[in-house]
Amino acid sequence: MSLLLALAVQATAAKPLTPSEIVAQAPAAAWQAVKPDDLLVIDYEGGGRTVIELAPAFAPVHVANIRALATAGYWTGSSIYRVQDNYVAQWGVNEGGPKVPASVIQKPPAEYDRPLRGLTVRPLGFLDNYAPRVGHALGWPVAWNPKTGRANLTHCYGMVGVGRDMAPDTGMGGELYAVIGHAPRHLDLNIALVGRVVEGIEQMSALPRGTEALGFYKTGSVARMIRSVRLASALPAADRPSFQVMRTASASFGAYVRARANRKDAFFNVPAGGVDLCNAPVPVRRTPAPSSLR
Amino acid sequence: MSLLLALAVQATAAKPLTPSEIVAQAPAAAWQAVKPDDLLVIDYEGGGRTVIELAPAFAPVHVANIRALATAGYWTGSSIYRVQDNYVAQWGVNEGGPKVPASVIQKPPAEYDRPLRGLTVRPLGFLDNYAPRVGHALGWPVAWNPKTGRANLTHCYGMVGVGRDMAPDTGMGGELYAVIGHAPRHLDLNIALVGRVVEGIEQMSALPRGTEALGFYKTGSVARMIRSVRLASALPAADRPSFQVMRTASASFGAYVRARANRKDAFFNVPAGGVDLCNAPVPVRRTPAPSSLR
Repeated sequence: MSLLLALAVQATAAKPLTPSEIVAQAPAAAWQAVKPDDLLVIDYEGGGRTVIELAPAFAPVHVANIRALATAGYWTGSSIYRVQDNYVAQWGVNEGGPKVPASVIQKPPAEYDRPLRGLTVRPLGFLDNYAPRVGHALGWPVAWNPKTGRANLTHCYGMVGVGRDMAPDTGMGGELYAVIGHAPRHLDLNIALVGRVVEGIEQMSALPRGTEALGFYKTGSVARMIRSVRLASALPAADRPSFQVMRTASASFGAYVRARANRKDAFFNVPAGGVDLCNAPVPVRRTPAPSSLR
Repeated sequence: MSLLLALAVQATAAKPLTPSEIVAQAPAAAWQAVKPDDLLVIDYEGGGRTVIELAPAFAPVHVANIRALATAGYWTGSSIYRVQDNYVAQWGVNEGGPKVPASVIQKPPAEYDRPLRGLTVRPLGFLDNYAPRVGHALGWPVAWNPKTGRANLTHCYGMVGVGRDMAPDTGMGGELYAVIGHAPRHLDLNIALVGRVVEGIEQMSALPRGTEALGFYKTGSVARMIRSVRLASALPAADRPSFQVMRTASASFGAYVRARANRKDAFFNVPAGGVDLCNAPVPVRRTPAPSSLR
């Protein structure tokens, strides 16, 4: 190896890319478009928007219910009525509410996991206290059990689940929550996860916490009124948000996870040498304008 | 075993205590008082209070600095000027500010860890991706390395650390942050942790997120103005908050961790069989009135 090459290698080794640099430099092929039917758009009274990506590959019946409810305008005039610190913000139709569309399955199956078969999983490469295996598949954080052949989404920050009462009720989808604190992974396999917030989580996470038990708001008051909840596919093109998720099977995503596990930015003295599943959130971005595509 | 006894055992096994029941039923001996010199009380303009327990056993020089700054009224008129979603809220004197008391050590040592010797650690009993061993000591979440003989506090939700610039700067304590999102454990051993929020974290976690890079507020604006930051020992008795932390060496705490790892409340179908360090937060409570002491 020539001296110059050796120096170049040394310089490269001394300045590894940061996680955000890896994301910024990822090629277009490392990104996958989110379908407009998989984007749920919440608009609030007084302004503000939260966008959720749905996960039909993991909870098809619940997601079909949610699409039907959105299409019927079921959540118009509903609210965020529960905000529990370090836990969840919950919204939807808490009591009463409009007629549920006929196509909605009122007692869905317990879509807490699905067959591992059909999923190409990328192992995280680090340990987990909640499942035998964890990693990513189809752009989602997942856990799986090779013995049972089952896989499930995991309760990381920003993930969206279906509120329910006591089992065997699984919730029909009219009440949803987003994780706004440390990942409550003990909920995995106990609740149907149906998606994740891809933009505007601060519209939920920054709300005043509810004063009643479990962060509920007092009867007669709510954290925030919801003007509409629609699928992006139902929005006029000019108002339709568009997102891309990093392909978790891409080399870029592998490099990103490794960099998250070994932070060597100038700020860091000691890289951890490991990372928890929920500390490697899958990068999501607004679809770049055509001119800026690589 | 008699039939009646067998039935009683069965009934007990069928209804294990929930984590909150274990906390509620813990005997007085399972609790340890927090010293008034270890409580930092932040009062905000317009009302609201956040109380922080300091950790002199882990960062004695930084904690001494913080006590001196509080005593001098250094933070009067300072602010929360950074709120980054799923990360931290940061406060204090960002630029300029009053004269730093002479007793403050401007360049403290890197108190990122301390000798394991002298700490009685309770192993969590579950894995960790960020350290060879994790558990609790002196009422705090800790990690340790048997080979190096060093132990450190960990970046769980609500933990408080010292803002710093690039190393070897460690921050003198005039700027502090609290974790308001998923535990950023990669910061362990890279920043001096000095305590945790024991009450009023929602005064920080529910603030609007800063619009600039890293959640900073625009120049000239802040999230919240701080009226005063004082040690509880400096407050009039009537206004002095008083807290107890569960002894992490107690049987109650052991039962609590096991229950957190094996949720069997009526809501749960499947207990995880494991728990992450930061999902077993050490119980803290207001000191009960004498009449209610067990």
